[in-house]
Amino acid sequence: MTKDKLINNINFRSNCSISKTLDLLGDKWSLLILRDVIFFDAKTYSDFVRRPEQIPTNLLAQRLKKLVEDGLLEKIPYQNNPIRYEYIATEKCNTVKPILTAMKKFGDEHFLKA
Amino acid sequence: MTKDKLINNINFRSNCSISKTLDLLGDKWSLLILRDVIFFDAKTYSDFVRRPEQIPTNLLAQRLKKLVEDGLLEKIPYQNNPIRYEYIATEKCNTVKPILTAMKKFGDEHFLKA
Repeated sequence: MTKDKLINNINFRSNCSISKTLDLLGDKWSLLILRDVIFFDAKTYSDFVRRPEQIPTNLLAQRLKKLVEDGLLEKIPYQNNPIRYEYIATEKCNTVKPILTAMKKFGDEHFLKA
Repeated sequence: MTKDKLINNINFRSNCSISKTLDLLGDKWSLLILRDVIFFDAKTYSDFVRRPEQIPTNLLAQRLKKLVEDGLLEKIPYQNNPIRYEYIATEKCNTVKPILTAMKKFGDEHFLKA
């Protein structure tokens, strides 16, 4: 992935790094898909569908496509006849981990004890 | 804010702390409003409207109301005739800071040099 590729097709609201990060990842599903790749070893379409949040399949397909376009995941064939793909974390994907870790800490603090 | 108040009116997709945090904050505006409070000393309606992302006023009103209900901001009158309110970070609001800091680091890494 190039840096250019990461910023393709996004109308950034401002030059702020936080705002741009939210423009890239700030929907309710993209970060969960990356969580599944990074922490739960999810790779295939059915891995993602099986997760407890039960992402609708149309949204999963959209988000996977966009995450590949943005250089966060790589789509690799792992089987022929019929061809099947798996989604692998790129180096850039791993830089999302601190965001997820901070969210986990916030969630653990405010929800686990509730 | 009580922990009960924080989890009011949210249909959590799962028990995962990351997923719950996204259910609470995972839209494109809530974290920007909290960014403005935490890092840019924004307090009043006009402070938020003046920010470079130019949040639509109807969305600002909705999000401020929800952030108060969720115990992340406190709404305090600072003027009478006419009455005006300002929005102050709660203790819980400050626990969002590591999420924003992680997003800033991600954005600085991927967008600033692009």
